[in-house]
Amino acid sequence: MTLLYGVDPRTGERLEPGVPETSPETVAALGVAAAKAARPLAELPLPDRAALLEAVADALEAAADELVPLADAETALGATRLSGEVERTTGQLRLLAGEARGEGFQQDVAEPGFVRALLPIGPVAVYAASNFPFAFSVAGGDTASAWAAGCPVIVKAHPGHPRTSARTAEIVTEALAKAGAPEGTFAIVHGFDAGMALINDPNIRAAGFTGSVRGGRALFDAAASRPDPIPFYGELGSINPVFVTEAAVAARGEEIARGYVGSFTLGSGQFCTKPGLLFLPAGHGLEPVLSAAVAAVAAPALLTPQITDGFRTGVERLAGATRTVAEGAGAHLFAVSAEEFAARPELTEECFGPASVIVEYSSEEELRAAVAAVPGSLTATVHAEPSDAGLARGLVAELARHVGRIVYNGWPTGVAVNRSMQHGGPWPATTAPLHTSVGTAAIRRFQVPVAFQGLPDDLLPPTVR
Amino acid sequence: MTLLYGVDPRTGERLEPGVPETSPETVAALGVAAAKAARPLAELPLPDRAALLEAVADALEAAADELVPLADAETALGATRLSGEVERTTGQLRLLAGEARGEGFQQDVAEPGFVRALLPIGPVAVYAASNFPFAFSVAGGDTASAWAAGCPVIVKAHPGHPRTSARTAEIVTEALAKAGAPEGTFAIVHGFDAGMALINDPNIRAAGFTGSVRGGRALFDAAASRPDPIPFYGELGSINPVFVTEAAVAARGEEIARGYVGSFTLGSGQFCTKPGLLFLPAGHGLEPVLSAAVAAVAAPALLTPQITDGFRTGVERLAGATRTVAEGAGAHLFAVSAEEFAARPELTEECFGPASVIVEYSSEEELRAAVAAVPGSLTATVHAEPSDAGLARGLVAELARHVGRIVYNGWPTGVAVNRSMQHGGPWPATTAPLHTSVGTAAIRRFQVPVAFQGLPDDLLPPTVR
Repeated sequence: MTLLYGVDPRTGERLEPGVPETSPETVAALGVAAAKAARPLAELPLPDRAALLEAVADALEAAADELVPLADAETALGATRLSGEVERTTGQLRLLAGEARGEGFQQDVAEPGFVRALLPIGPVAVYAASNFPFAFSVAGGDTASAWAAGCPVIVKAHPGHPRTSARTAEIVTEALAKAGAPEGTFAIVHGFDAGMALINDPNIRAAGFTGSVRGGRALFDAAASRPDPIPFYGELGSINPVFVTEAAVAARGEEIARGYVGSFTLGSGQFCTKPGLLFLPAGHGLEPVLSAAVAAVAAPALLTPQITDGFRTGVERLAGATRTVAEGAGAHLFAVSAEEFAARPELTEECFGPASVIVEYSSEEELRAAVAAVPGSLTATVHAEPSDAGLARGLVAELARHVGRIVYNGWPTGVAVNRSMQHGGPWPATTAPLHTSVGTAAIRRFQVPVAFQGLPDDLLPPTVR
Repeated sequence: MTLLYGVDPRTGERLEPGVPETSPETVAALGVAAAKAARPLAELPLPDRAALLEAVADALEAAADELVPLADAETALGATRLSGEVERTTGQLRLLAGEARGEGFQQDVAEPGFVRALLPIGPVAVYAASNFPFAFSVAGGDTASAWAAGCPVIVKAHPGHPRTSARTAEIVTEALAKAGAPEGTFAIVHGFDAGMALINDPNIRAAGFTGSVRGGRALFDAAASRPDPIPFYGELGSINPVFVTEAAVAARGEEIARGYVGSFTLGSGQFCTKPGLLFLPAGHGLEPVLSAAVAAVAAPALLTPQITDGFRTGVERLAGATRTVAEGAGAHLFAVSAEEFAARPELTEECFGPASVIVEYSSEEELRAAVAAVPGSLTATVHAEPSDAGLARGLVAELARHVGRIVYNGWPTGVAVNRSMQHGGPWPATTAPLHTSVGTAAIRRFQVPVAFQGLPDDLLPPTVR
């Protein structure tokens, strides 16, 4: 039996004990169990379904003191951030539970002779993320939204935090059993091969993923190549550009500069919404402020050895292609002209970690051209003033064709979990631009519409009546 | 320049004049034009966008006397059916126009500081169907729903009716120009290579398709293999099983038998909702009625030489695997026991044309097992009586996991175009089980959510405010 080990990012040392890799045979057996659970779970009265999510939330909350140190050892994200993340995770579970309990959940439209309902798609595979060991992991947003839709879930744990994942899974399994969930409502698998077996498992009907473009593309390709292709909701890479107008620099340039450094170094730049590009008017004069802010950032311990290596390579790539504005122990800031930027499409590739690139534009035309060339992103941000509302309006209109969320005079890091969030966007931000992986609309990814034509009310599924 | 020709299904003769095949260079140029049209089309005030669909509906209505004979020559569907289909097509355009004009169209959810809007995804490729030369073709449901979403459309004409498609496209182009549509809002391409170039065109952001499993899979694979994968909404093959309880046979067996033959031979069995399987209790005694009904069906002229060949092969396959119940000039009816059926999964493959298979079950257990094994289908139908409501309820609950629409005591052919229709289902019925290609919800396939965070109202796109 192969054991998988986490690594302490602060020391580089292997963390004992290891977690057993899941065999393909076990993955297949878990798929069968999930398929068996699908109908009883779908037919649970909706308040009972919601209660399952709440039971998991309660159990995670009660175990926070045990889970946070486990996760900190594997991720070095720190107790404060990780405690907040447990709260976010339990908050998500409760928000989605409330949605499932709400009036008319699952009922889409009805008219004489017809009812259109939104029913669970079936067993869902969830590929956990490195950078959110709770909120985008075992009982994170993908899992919570699949459960809220009424789907059994099999999680592929992220190799960056195997012990946190395994322990969270034990807590989840126990909470679900106590709350009366059908057996097979939840399972976890570990290991690369188990992840590939899972995406190809005939009982899996959809998958959610948060991670790199490379990993996400490999799983997307597998999902699309099945004899029966299944929906694959992948959240991959995003450059999250920020556009600052001249009027905004004049009104509050220093505040913007400090806010930008704070945003791109938050969580050591390991957020999918990290701003990777800042468009400033040439002659902005903000380099002293930017440099000071960068110098004040503490040295990061990045999540995994792979991420550390990737970041080093990314910084070398950027350093070779741009001018270095500021380099500190904890952050790297580069700059190019808009002209140079237009000639180097590779500058729009995400560099995961605390690095970012300033693009200096010399005219509104250059700014507009840069906006029109934005690759698919989760977010774009505009900093402007009432005096240049016309320009801002034009930027927003164009950006709405390239990104899932537009932030005005704020920062993209920090994603609200609410009913109107869109955490998604065109490729390469996601593999499914119609959907979000954050907020209540995330449930919709795992619901299929079914029209009932001419059925007397007592023949409709009870959750639809 | 290669010319493409339709074939008169009644005579097998080639129809002059031919329609020029579209070169890959032209496809690329049309993609660029569609991309240029995307933003002005998205920014048209919604009433003006709706007016475009209505202008096309008016123009098609005015041209019906010209279009119907053209289509009849290429498809042999008959003037009555084709006139009705033009009406359905104009009705769809007007229904979707009304949706786009409706209060709150494009606005999804709003809460303090956030608005989530549903904006056009960008240029859409539409692959037209053989069996609906109007309603699922040039200005059919896919095109109408993409326009309603605010997307430019490039149609790949079906080779079965090139002249009808080309003439319809001329009428559509003229109507759009007169109504003030941005140039590039619509184009048509002809030929297999043009279709493949279109799905790979970098300016195309999504595609709709109605047709065979083979053709749909090839295009789906191409869409998924792009450097930037795009959503592909394919409606492929469906077996549409019908389940009849003992009580229903006792109460109205002959009516059901006649209704079934009527449904599977309607339009010469060339509907995607044609019932391909009828589950009857063994000893039903309906063979005389079924045989008489089959004998009364007139010989069909199937849509294309390819469909005629495919039907011949399919009938031979079924004849070799089953018992022949009735064979007429215009229809073929076969039967197997539920036990034989369970051993021959190939009997669930669609045979496009007027043929169907009766499956005789000996117990409710056999019936339930057959229902649990239903492959993904657009529809399933249950015929039952109040006396066996418990059985019917169980069948409906299971079928809701396999199909997009459940019909009670009716027939699946004849698809209502309304707000609660679901014309979709799990693979192989479609490539996108979350979506419908019929009804107002079809628009949703071409809308991407965008969240606006912290934007003052006057900076929001005007169609969102």
